[in-house]
This record gives sequence, C-alpha cells and structure tokens, in this order.
Amino acid sequence: MERCWLGRDVLSILDFDRKCIEELFNLTLIMEKYSRTRLNILEDKVLALAFFEPSTRTRLSFETAMKRLGGSTIGFTGEEAISVSKGESIADTVRMLDSYADAIVIRHSLEGVAKYAAEIANNPVINAGDGTQNHPTQAMLDLYTIWRELGEIDGICVGILGDLKYARTVKSLIEGLTLFRPSKIYLISPPALRPRREVLAILENAGLKYSHVENIDEVIRELDVLYVVRIQKERFPDVVEYERVKGSYRITLETLKNCKDTLIILHPLPRVDEIDPQVDSTRHARYFKQAAYGVPLRMALLTLIFGREDKVR
Amino acid sequence: MERCWLGRDVLSILDFDRKCIEELFNLTLIMEKYSRTRLNILEDKVLALAFFEPSTRTRLSFETAMKRLGGSTIGFTGEEAISVSKGESIADTVRMLDSYADAIVIRHSLEGVAKYAAEIANNPVINAGDGTQNHPTQAMLDLYTIWRELGEIDGICVGILGDLKYARTVKSLIEGLTLFRPSKIYLISPPALRPRREVLAILENAGLKYSHVENIDEVIRELDVLYVVRIQKERFPDVVEYERVKGSYRITLETLKNCKDTLIILHPLPRVDEIDPQVDSTRHARYFKQAAYGVPLRMALLTLIFGREDKVR
Amino acid sequence: MERCWLGRDVLSILDFDRKCIEELFNLTLIMEKYSRTRLNILEDKVLALAFFEPSTRTRLSFETAMKRLGGSTIGFTGEEAISVSKGESIADTVRMLDSYADAIVIRHSLEGVAKYAAEIANNPVINAGDGTQNHPTQAMLDLYTIWRELGEIDGICVGILGDLKYARTVKSLIEGLTLFRPSKIYLISPPALRPRREVLAILENAGLKYSHVENIDEVIRELDVLYVVRIQKERFPDVVEYERVKGSYRITLETLKNCKDTLIILHPLPRVDEIDPQVDSTRHARYFKQAAYGVPLRMALLTLIFGREDKVR
Repeated sequence: MERCWLGRDVLSILDFDRKCIEELFNLTLIMEKYSRTRLNILEDKVLALAFFEPSTRTRLSFETAMKRLGGSTIGFTGEEAISVSKGESIADTVRMLDSYADAIVIRHSLEGVAKYAAEIANNPVINAGDGTQNHPTQAMLDLYTIWRELGEIDGICVGILGDLKYARTVKSLIEGLTLFRPSKIYLISPPALRPRREVLAILENAGLKYSHVENIDEVIRELDVLYVVRIQKERFPDVVEYERVKGSYRITLETLKNCKDTLIILHPLPRVDEIDPQVDSTRHARYFKQAAYGVPLRMALLTLIFGREDKVR
Repeated sequence: MERCWLGRDVLSILDFDRKCIEELFNLTLIMEKYSRTRLNILEDKVLALAFFEPSTRTRLSFETAMKRLGGSTIGFTGEEAISVSKGESIADTVRMLDSYADAIVIRHSLEGVAKYAAEIANNPVINAGDGTQNHPTQAMLDLYTIWRELGEIDGICVGILGDLKYARTVKSLIEGLTLFRPSKIYLISPPALRPRREVLAILENAGLKYSHVENIDEVIRELDVLYVVRIQKERFPDVVEYERVKGSYRITLETLKNCKDTLIILHPLPRVDEIDPQVDSTRHARYFKQAAYGVPLRMALLTLIFGREDKVR
Repeated sequence: MERCWLGRDVLSILDFDRKCIEELFNLTLIMEKYSRTRLNILEDKVLALAFFEPSTRTRLSFETAMKRLGGSTIGFTGEEAISVSKGESIADTVRMLDSYADAIVIRHSLEGVAKYAAEIANNPVINAGDGTQNHPTQAMLDLYTIWRELGEIDGICVGILGDLKYARTVKSLIEGLTLFRPSKIYLISPPALRPRREVLAILENAGLKYSHVENIDEVIRELDVLYVVRIQKERFPDVVEYERVKGSYRITLETLKNCKDTLIILHPLPRVDEIDPQVDSTRHARYFKQAAYGVPLRMALLTLIFGREDKVR
C-alpha cells in the first residue's frame, strides 16, 4: 500500500485525499486504546513545538500525544518566542529547530508561515494554525469526531455557526468536508461574517450544496452536526450591530428544542459564552469528547508521519 | 490493607488520617533512596501541571518526582496561563487537562479552585496551593521533615513565627499538626497577623494547647521546632508599625543563643530576609533539607495516588 | 586514563586543557551518529536548566542533547525566572535546583553568577553564558566546528569580526584558541569595539600573533576562518559613527570575492543582518552546520561530566 503520510508536511487538509484521511481515522480509533497509557514507538524522535502564538489545547495535545508514544518534545511558546527571536528571521529559527528535532509543529499569527517553514526544513512541518485561515489538524479532529460519533460523514447535514470569516478553523473544516459527501452545509452567520469568497469557491468547486442562513431557528430541525465558533465583538465595525445579533449566535436549551435527537454539537474550544453551559449535559454536546479525541488523533498523525504504524498493535 | 490514597484528590491534609500520613512518610523514606535515580513505575502516566500562579519550588519538585518515576508531565505556568485561558472558564480548562492527563496538579490565586477542579475532573486533583489558606503537600513535607529529623511529632513543642494570617502554608501546617499530638504550639506574630479565627478553632477542636506570643525570646528555650514564614510589608496598614516590629521576626544567631541544642528551624521557602544567612551553617537550619525532601515526598504521593506502591523495592 | 570531565564544573573553557578538549571533540564525532536517535545512557539523570536570561539555541540544544541521551530536564526561563525568584537570593535558588537535579545549566545577565553557583552547588554547574564575557560551551562548539570542517585548528588564520568588546562569545573563543596554535588572529572591528585589555592579554600570554584591523578587505585573502558577531547600534555613543561603520562589518558576496576557496564562515547565531542571506548558499557558510553540531557536542559534554563515555558505542 502506498504511504500517504510518511515524511509529509501537514500544511492544509487538502494535501491529503479521502483515502489518507480514512487511514488516519482508522489508526486514531486504534490509538484511543493507547491514549491513556504508553506505546514506545517514537522513543528515538524529538518533536519541536514552535508556538509563536500561545495555545494550550493544540500544544498540550501534541505534547501529550508525543509523550504517550515514548517520544520527546522541545520548544517555546508565546512571549518567550517573541523575546527570543527578536531580530532573528523565521527562516533561521526554523533551520535551528530542523537541525535539533525530527519534526516541527508550528503556530504563527501570520498566514503562510507554516508553508514557508516547510520549504526551509528538511524534516516534516505540521501547521498548528497560521493566520486566520488554516488549522488542518483541528479540521482532521473535527471530521474524526463526526465520523466517530455518527458513523459517517457522507450524507449528513452540517450547520456551521458564528464568525465564518475570521475564525481559524472554519476554512480548514470546509476544505475537509469537500473530501466527503455531506448532503448540505448551512453557513449560519450575520451577513458581515460570511465566509470569504475563496472559501465559498471551495464548496462550489467540490459541488457541495450550501446556503447562507442568518437565524439558526430556520434550519435547526435539519441538522445532524452543529459546529459552533466564537463571534468576537471586535470584528464588528459597529457595536450596536454586534449587540443586536449576538443573541442569535448563542446556543441554549431553547435553541435546541426542535433539533433532531441525534444532533451533535461541536466546538473547537476554547469557548467563551457562545454555548450555554446548560447545553453541556445534553446528549447533543460532544465538544469535550472532541477535545479528548485530540490526543489519539495526534498520536495517529505522528505515528503515520514517522512511518511507525506497523509497530502499533 | 485499605488503601487511603488510590485515586484520591489531595485538597486538604485533613482529607487523610494519621495512618494515611504515616503510610506516606514510610514510603517517602524508601523513596529517598530513589530520588537521585530513576524508578520506572509511572511510565504510562502523564501529570498535568496547571500553575495559574507561578511557582518554582512546588512545580519543579512535582516535575522532578514525576520524571524520576518514569512518568511525563505537561502544563503551563503563570503569564502563559493568563494569556491562554483568556475568557475560557476554569471548568473548561480543567476538562481539557482531565482528558489529556492522568492527574492534575493545580495552583491558583483564588481559594476553592482546587476543590472546584476536583468536582469536575474524573482523575485525581492535587492542590498545590490555592488562595491564602491551603497548600496540603507543603504541610505533608513540613511534617515529614519534623518526623524525619526528630523521629516523631508527638510530644514536641512547635513555634510558628511570622505572618500567620496570610501565609499560605500556615493553615495547612496547623491542620496537619492536629493529626498528631504535639505538646504545645506557640503562635509567634504581631497581634495584627495572628491566625484567623477559623484556624484557631481547628486547634481548639483538636484539643491542642497553643498560646499567642509576640516575642520569640519568651519561648525560644522551649522549642523543638521553629517554623518561620515571611512577613510582608504590604500586609501592614501602617508602615511605621511594620518598621517597629520587623526586627522581632527575623531569626539571627542572637535569636538562637538560648535555644535547645536539638532545635530545628524550618521554612517553606523562598525566604527573603526573615532568616539571616549566618543561621544556614548552624546545626539548627533544616530548611534546605526540607526543600530537598520535596522530591521523595512527592514521588511517594504520586506512587500512592496511582496505586503503584507494590512496585517499589 | 585520567578523567578530565567527570563531575567537573564548566565555567570557563580554560578550566580544561587541550587533551580534554580533544577528548570532547572525539566523543562529539561519535555522538554525531546518535544525535538523530536515542542513546539511553543518562536515564537516571535530571538536568536543571536555569535560564535567568532567555535563550532558544543554547537552551534547546542542551534540552535536546539530554533527551537524546534518555535523561530528563526541568527548569525555568526568562520572565518566569524573574517573577518566581522575586526576592529570593540566587544562592537559595541554586540550592533548590541542586537538591532536585544532577547538574545545573545556568545563564544569567550578571558576570560571575555561574562561578558563584558552582561554589554553592554540590553537583556540576555548566555556564551557559553569564555577563558579556563567558560562554564556554559555545566556544567548544566554535572550535569543534573548525576542527570538524578544516581538520585542524593549529596553523590556521582566524578573523573575528564585529563587536569584539561586548559580544558574549568572543572572549571564550579567544581563550579556546589559546589551547591550540593558530598561525594568526585578526581582530576586525571599529577601534571603539576592540577586545578589552584583559582579553588581549590572554592572546599575548599564550604567545599568539594577532593584529587589529578595521577593514576586512585588508585581510580577507589570508583567512581560513571568519567568525562573525553582531554589532549593536546601542553600543555606539554616536549614531553617526555607527551609520558610518556598519557597512564595513556586514558580510556580502562582494566581501568574499577575494577569499580563499576553503574559507569557512562561522557565527554563534542568532544573526540579524550582519551576514547577507545570499552568503548562506555559498560553500563558505558553515554557521547552520555549526548550530547543528550543538546537539552532539552537548551530548558528548553531558556524557563526559556524568562519566558515561564507556557506555557509548
């Protein structure tokens, strides 16, 4: 079997086809058994975590995954990165990490940094979020959660709600959905925060059906998956407009009263107040499970990139 | 034998009885042999260190203990925590850590956070200091040092000197002392910095004898243990008052001229100037040994919580 | 064979003689084979990384080296250190680290801190840069790179260019060169940034020939090694003077047009703009290789200090 993952950079989810993603999912399913123990298959590997922008969830899940696999991590995060690299080019920092470690996980506030790093580094580079558009391992996790909780991604109806223009995970998720055949995608947002033109083009080119919706009540009955992202006040030119719409993009028990029994709600986290904590105890809430899947998914990803999948089991 | 520790949260030292504490001490004594080497009994465990407030001693001793036992650590500290969790509830942060790691060590400036975290997490939560009142593993370390250096805690005379109202370790130490039968406790402080009413009630309910003392000279002859904590200038409403009293709560060779030969001096560290460095080289100074016992004590604690004590030896 | 390294502090490169340094180089050469894998010879060791001043390259190369050898690291860095040790003496911080870990790597902005720490600690202390004058492991790395790339250090002509007065690595490199017999050393800098009197005395006492040079064009033909360090604007009392000279201390393809075919260019990194990126792709550029040698060199150093060289191979 041809190997999709061995030695590959992970810059965009579209670098991989459906078969590759399904291979990742199948290995993640196996890794769930090992995500609370230790599997010494990457003992000889060091993973660099270059978080130019702070993060807990993504950073700690990669770190946990690497350690559960017996490997080591080095790195820096946030403020430290800024004071340290003062004046040094990103290229030189990447060259250093590439000469110490066997792969680099990178997060940066500027779009394109991960791709640039991948051109410089000999070892694999994994994009852990750059700019406002790409976060491929989050999208893999989002899709895995749907696949795991509902059994399939083909044929489902997905609502994506919140700030669809600036939220980092939305573009990657939409790209990921084009690898499958969801029946319909509802883009639920205020008109000012609809996905950018080029993101809509991805859906169109893939022939996926989508509609813009302003009020979730119109479509809640149809949804199999509701994916919620945050709306930040500072994205609105007009505070009055923000105050007017914000209630419509907050999920409460009331929002869910007409939903399908089997609806699952996802969120990349952290959340602020876009999902009422009362929703947490409903059967619909799967965002904490989704977060927990982050460790086995990244265990599977690292195993595949280092070509050690034969050692699992 | 019933297991006191397996899977338990460590929120207050009073969650454990004397028998449990003695079991911890006996295992710590064994762990002293391993605290400079490696004992691979927690290889399959990941410990999350959630230091919302910075710390070196407590954090690094837990980290060293976990690594000496073959386990891994993940976590965040101080500023990083603040920038990262901006807007996220503590509950959601705890849920994330709980889904990645096998136990959580937590420090926070707000009282009650550890208990709240323990209600949310499925895995054990260890309080590494919250608010100004609780620091149970420090109290275990304080008591272990007395037990180790003097052979017993029953029958000894303990002086606790400094800011007894706000210092984080005092309440936990006093709680811990009630599990034993010290002969007398002297509370040596300015009147404004005496322990709070509810802390005195702990001593009274346990039937332990105590007195308030303003000048250590009055009681130095009687003490077996002198436990020193810092007095911070900012605790005094009146700077003049602070300047007047501060000399009385600084330990020098002069302070010790009438003490017992066998007196031991403890301090949770870090110290600023409340103990003259000249005291360091006397036979009385045990605060550096006390700090060093932090690693074997936390090795024993983690071993017991994960139920691996049978693997030691 | 007498052991130069076992249990020793590494405060200055002059604490070691040529034989010791050559032993280090020979072991580094072997470690190059292991610097991309794992050699479990320090599994029972914990290394404390006490970076009172931030650093990425030095810190991450020590951390990688320790982990590749199977050991563990603990520590703190930069801001964290400042907030944590607020008020605590360096002596007390060092005592703590000494009681947790088996060796301490220390960086501090004040000269002499590493030596002071070594007087307090029982375990070995490694100076990772203190003040503006000492950085012995960087000098070992610089010399190793020359030895590795050119085959020898004796008989070569070395140019050192930039701020020779304040750059941390220059004094240590010059000290290291006195352990060998380079044919000539050119000190290429503006007059105001020449090495301090006591650094020149080191060269004189060792009987090494050197000259001050203001313009690299005068000597470029003769050089076997060009070692570049940064010139910082803020070192100049007069901005006009800085603007006048800066171009002369920037290496470009033009600078190199008359150099030897075999010239190698080194730099301790990070660089800002003192070497034009166009130089990176010439055969002369060895600064990235030099950085990469940091891991095997520090693997060798740690192995020797812990006396485990017999376990290699």
